[in-house]
Amino acid sequence: MNERGFASDNSATVHPLVLGAIARVNVGHAFGYGHDPYSERITALIEEQFRGDARAFLVFNGTAANVLSLRAVCRPWQAAICAETAHLNVDEGGAPEAVAGVKLLTIPGENGKLTPSQVRGRIARIGDEHAVQPRVVSISQCTELGTCYSMKETKALADVAHAHDMLLHVDGARLANAAAWLELPLYALTTEAGVDVVSFGATKNGALGAEAVVFLNPELADGFRYLRKQSLQLASKMRFLAAQFEALLTDDLWLLSAHQANQMALRLGRGVNKMRHVEITRPVQSNAVFARITAKAIARLQQDFAFYTWDEATNEVRWMCSWDTTEQDVDEFIEAIAEAVGG
Amino acid sequence: MNERGFASDNSATVHPLVLGAIARVNVGHAFGYGHDPYSERITALIEEQFRGDARAFLVFNGTAANVLSLRAVCRPWQAAICAETAHLNVDEGGAPEAVAGVKLLTIPGENGKLTPSQVRGRIARIGDEHAVQPRVVSISQCTELGTCYSMKETKALADVAHAHDMLLHVDGARLANAAAWLELPLYALTTEAGVDVVSFGATKNGALGAEAVVFLNPELADGFRYLRKQSLQLASKMRFLAAQFEALLTDDLWLLSAHQANQMALRLGRGVNKMRHVEITRPVQSNAVFARITAKAIARLQQDFAFYTWDEATNEVRWMCSWDTTEQDVDEFIEAIAEAVGG
Amino acid sequence: MNERGFASDNSATVHPLVLGAIARVNVGHAFGYGHDPYSERITALIEEQFRGDARAFLVFNGTAANVLSLRAVCRPWQAAICAETAHLNVDEGGAPEAVAGVKLLTIPGENGKLTPSQVRGRIARIGDEHAVQPRVVSISQCTELGTCYSMKETKALADVAHAHDMLLHVDGARLANAAAWLELPLYALTTEAGVDVVSFGATKNGALGAEAVVFLNPELADGFRYLRKQSLQLASKMRFLAAQFEALLTDDLWLLSAHQANQMALRLGRGVNKMRHVEITRPVQSNAVFARITAKAIARLQQDFAFYTWDEATNEVRWMCSWDTTEQDVDEFIEAIAEAVGG
Amino acid sequence: MNERGFASDNSATVHPLVLGAIARVNVGHAFGYGHDPYSERITALIEEQFRGDARAFLVFNGTAANVLSLRAVCRPWQAAICAETAHLNVDEGGAPEAVAGVKLLTIPGENGKLTPSQVRGRIARIGDEHAVQPRVVSISQCTELGTCYSMKETKALADVAHAHDMLLHVDGARLANAAAWLELPLYALTTEAGVDVVSFGATKNGALGAEAVVFLNPELADGFRYLRKQSLQLASKMRFLAAQFEALLTDDLWLLSAHQANQMALRLGRGVNKMRHVEITRPVQSNAVFARITAKAIARLQQDFAFYTWDEATNEVRWMCSWDTTEQDVDEFIEAIAEAVGG
Repeated sequence: MNERGFASDNSATVHPLVLGAIARVNVGHAFGYGHDPYSERITALIEEQFRGDARAFLVFNGTAANVLSLRAVCRPWQAAICAETAHLNVDEGGAPEAVAGVKLLTIPGENGKLTPSQVRGRIARIGDEHAVQPRVVSISQCTELGTCYSMKETKALADVAHAHDMLLHVDGARLANAAAWLELPLYALTTEAGVDVVSFGATKNGALGAEAVVFLNPELADGFRYLRKQSLQLASKMRFLAAQFEALLTDDLWLLSAHQANQMALRLGRGVNKMRHVEITRPVQSNAVFARITAKAIARLQQDFAFYTWDEATNEVRWMCSWDTTEQDVDEFIEAIAEAVGG
Repeated sequence: MNERGFASDNSATVHPLVLGAIARVNVGHAFGYGHDPYSERITALIEEQFRGDARAFLVFNGTAANVLSLRAVCRPWQAAICAETAHLNVDEGGAPEAVAGVKLLTIPGENGKLTPSQVRGRIARIGDEHAVQPRVVSISQCTELGTCYSMKETKALADVAHAHDMLLHVDGARLANAAAWLELPLYALTTEAGVDVVSFGATKNGALGAEAVVFLNPELADGFRYLRKQSLQLASKMRFLAAQFEALLTDDLWLLSAHQANQMALRLGRGVNKMRHVEITRPVQSNAVFARITAKAIARLQQDFAFYTWDEATNEVRWMCSWDTTEQDVDEFIEAIAEAVGG
Repeated sequence: MNERGFASDNSATVHPLVLGAIARVNVGHAFGYGHDPYSERITALIEEQFRGDARAFLVFNGTAANVLSLRAVCRPWQAAICAETAHLNVDEGGAPEAVAGVKLLTIPGENGKLTPSQVRGRIARIGDEHAVQPRVVSISQCTELGTCYSMKETKALADVAHAHDMLLHVDGARLANAAAWLELPLYALTTEAGVDVVSFGATKNGALGAEAVVFLNPELADGFRYLRKQSLQLASKMRFLAAQFEALLTDDLWLLSAHQANQMALRLGRGVNKMRHVEITRPVQSNAVFARITAKAIARLQQDFAFYTWDEATNEVRWMCSWDTTEQDVDEFIEAIAEAVGG
Repeated sequence: MNERGFASDNSATVHPLVLGAIARVNVGHAFGYGHDPYSERITALIEEQFRGDARAFLVFNGTAANVLSLRAVCRPWQAAICAETAHLNVDEGGAPEAVAGVKLLTIPGENGKLTPSQVRGRIARIGDEHAVQPRVVSISQCTELGTCYSMKETKALADVAHAHDMLLHVDGARLANAAAWLELPLYALTTEAGVDVVSFGATKNGALGAEAVVFLNPELADGFRYLRKQSLQLASKMRFLAAQFEALLTDDLWLLSAHQANQMALRLGRGVNKMRHVEITRPVQSNAVFARITAKAIARLQQDFAFYTWDEATNEVRWMCSWDTTEQDVDEFIEAIAEAVGG
């Protein structure tokens, strides 16, 4: 088995600069739970990335960032609209329902993306007490299928949401990859596009384990620190979560890392695109390549390289690049694919 | 303000050997969520510490370890018996109730400890559907007040619990300090004493952020991995949580670190014990010293040293030592106390 | 507006025999919460209807019967499979998710019915901690669309469920109508067909407000009385809920009432079937007729008769008959329909 | 066993006028879920009793009225302050915690009543994210121990609550008895005394099963109808709940019934007060008499009369009168008590 595979960006290593920042802040005592000047300063740095009056809160992982975003903005009878393929719907172990108490109204979106008209169609039965009341639209940027919403597309969804007194949440576990792909700063992707709350991921982008819930509408943050604590997400030694963001926000490490991962996916996509027995199934717009090959080829490749079959029924596979994927990794993989699929 | 204070053991630094282990495991890709051989091996190491058929699960923090322990063993109508001063009751932001849905039946215990007869008195209204049904007794070892249960005391509580078809949970955020104080291995403190489930803490003992829920009765662990995921506590890059435990479990670092913290508390306790205007208020049995001094002395000391006033009404303060507290730290603090209280 | 419409079977009156039973039991004092001999006797009567070792518990309404059925049999990470059109999914105000903490895995079934192969397709990702684990299949009998499962169809679904270590729940808000339609006793429809737990409705069948959760597998009832109390569903003056069931179970009033409602739907269906501008859209198999007429005809009819438009997009309407619907009611309505649709 | 005992006011019969109102409204069809003119009119009648801008919502039982009141006004991290003896704390099966997610901060009040200074002492750690944040004070009127708050006492508690940006909730399962005792209209007891939300009980006062959540501050009612539905408390045949209130509110039946119950308790209290071996343990201020007699006397009396031992440890018993308790019932009971205690 190869040392570096294409299973997931969270199979990757921690960026050495992240470990460096952790080591650097490991001096002397600091008040816990974020009440130390360093954690406060780094939190402010994150907020600056989103401009406006953003309010950021660090949490441990992406499930938490997503679920707490919903719980923060929904009363018990309110619901979230999302794609059927959304991580929220299929990969959070039922946490939105069981922990946040929020029902998901799903849409079978193409390539993981929602359109304004689809969302409008899901905003129904307003005022009918027998039905949950939609409160927030949640999109993933990038999506689970590696695609990106353009700023215009995001804005259109925000407009629909706001027109119905709803909010727009972005599951940004891979927001950095979207920013790198779209060549837009984080605030343009979000604040300027009308987004209300973001799960801003770092773990998949070279951190050890740290995410931020960022409220772009600061009123939504009222009481959130109580919610974070109650929801098991308040780190005692907070400075070590903050340090991970410090490293990523210094000299645009977050952007360079995401760019590298995206470039490697592009290289991989181009490398296999010409192969007769490989069908690229989704637009390559971030750090993932989705493709269809034979079951036999999958089995053969997985002897040497870690990756997931996305859909057993159709033999669609997902090949994920990371900040630490190298050109050599990709080229070796392309070669192996060529061999497995028989050219 | 002094660089190292006495506010909390989670104000302390991460042990360099912990950072070293993290760096060492930061090589190549690894499957996420604990499904990598390294994380599995370290989990087994933790389980060995508790002997028997222990089943361990890593989580991010102590609140989670406690709340998930309760949620794992209680049906919705069941309750936990604990001390009024228990962290569960006063410092978890209502998580036991709101996240686990578990009502706490509290006991005003002395020095944070419960006795069998107190517990027996709380096991009431069995079979009465209007009342929650007690399912688990939860004790802290060490307690919030720095005291320890002897093995015999723990066993007596386990016997009461089991006699009523209940379980014994130990909030062991500072279990290492108790083990060091009582000079007992972890399994003797827990498995042999009849404990059913433990929150085994590492964060306060030199880790960056890692705790384990350890089921000593393995049947209780059924389904726990789903519960951990749903409760926002499944780390994607699990190996870096595991590495923290590897460092602590290697060459008994966990024990040496806890011992050092305890010794510093003893030194501090002895140092102030003779002072006329300092009253030690709790037995010093771990890494905390509780004392009463004047409000004026508190104010003066807090200009230079971080620590908490435990009870504003009685001027009781808590001075907490950590794995990184040195003899010099303690001696300087003793001197400052002497000055502040006027000899 | 006509005095009796076709809006819903819960718009109907209470059967006079039900009021009579309530009045008859209104003598002397009785222990509350079901701990009186009368309530115990009537509960046993219900249990007899389902034979085997059925265990019945009275609750206030259908939402509660459904939600508590799920909550009783699911651990927090477990899920229920049901039709997209199921009441559970669209008309319980998000209670399954928010109160029971149960995620629903939905299937776009035809005419509200699920097939074994559809259910099998939803039983996926077993053992994958990122996904909820299916625990129960929930079907409605009759369905929201007025159709019935044959005993064989129910049995086939039970077999699929049991083969996967799952359970089969029946939302029987209109179980009586199904029994009347299928000409089967209640135990044949349920216990003999492999059903594990039933929401057995009375309110839509002439009661004032009373439903029963009936566990056909008595082990599933463990602790349910605590759950009922905690879930706000334990009536203090229980005898008056029991009395409603006594009336319905005496001389098969439940069956006669359901039969009457079904016959009126058949009469209505036959009456409109021949009209050129009325399209019956679902098989008439209980007390509902679904049909498509023009928007104009809907508007005109609703001036005189209460009924619901089921689907605004397709002009599908639902005409619901009740135990108190008379032949004259139906014939007047048929005449009005004929006029509205222009023959 | 005597036909009418002193166990509980919910062991009593339904007032014939309540059954009469139910029968009277049982004519023709009515839209379900309260969307019929009759239910709307009766709801308005309830609101008038409380004056101001009261907003009333009918629910099935007292547990629901209490738990939904809390859930309506608390965000997840907020808490309720109540007496240790409060029904909420000891007799709701853990519903406040498990269903509303609200932690209770209890006070060991004398005779079931809270004082402003006790409440002030419980309003602590505001702004501390590790602690739940008090949002509402909940008192019972009458209390579990049969005592009443004077209007001045209620007002003082409301003032404390409001001064801390908190609310005052009244568990009024027996509010009618308090109104009768204090000779005050309902609005004086509540709206004028600064109460924000009331659980207004009817079941213990001659209804079959109906309670109302009444928001005196109408802004608090926003979204409540969704919460009621989701919390399993929306009756489909609502008119029959409304009818119960119609009967009680007509010609002050509620007041006469409560007055009768209170008078019978007074008569009973006076009757036993002179007995040497009976010690009245609580002020008689409503429909309950609390007394201490010997265990032997308890056993002997319970052969003929239903009543509860309130405290096994002290042999304190509770004798509860109802709207249907007669002078003859009381006199027979007094005689039996005299015999049982030996004069």
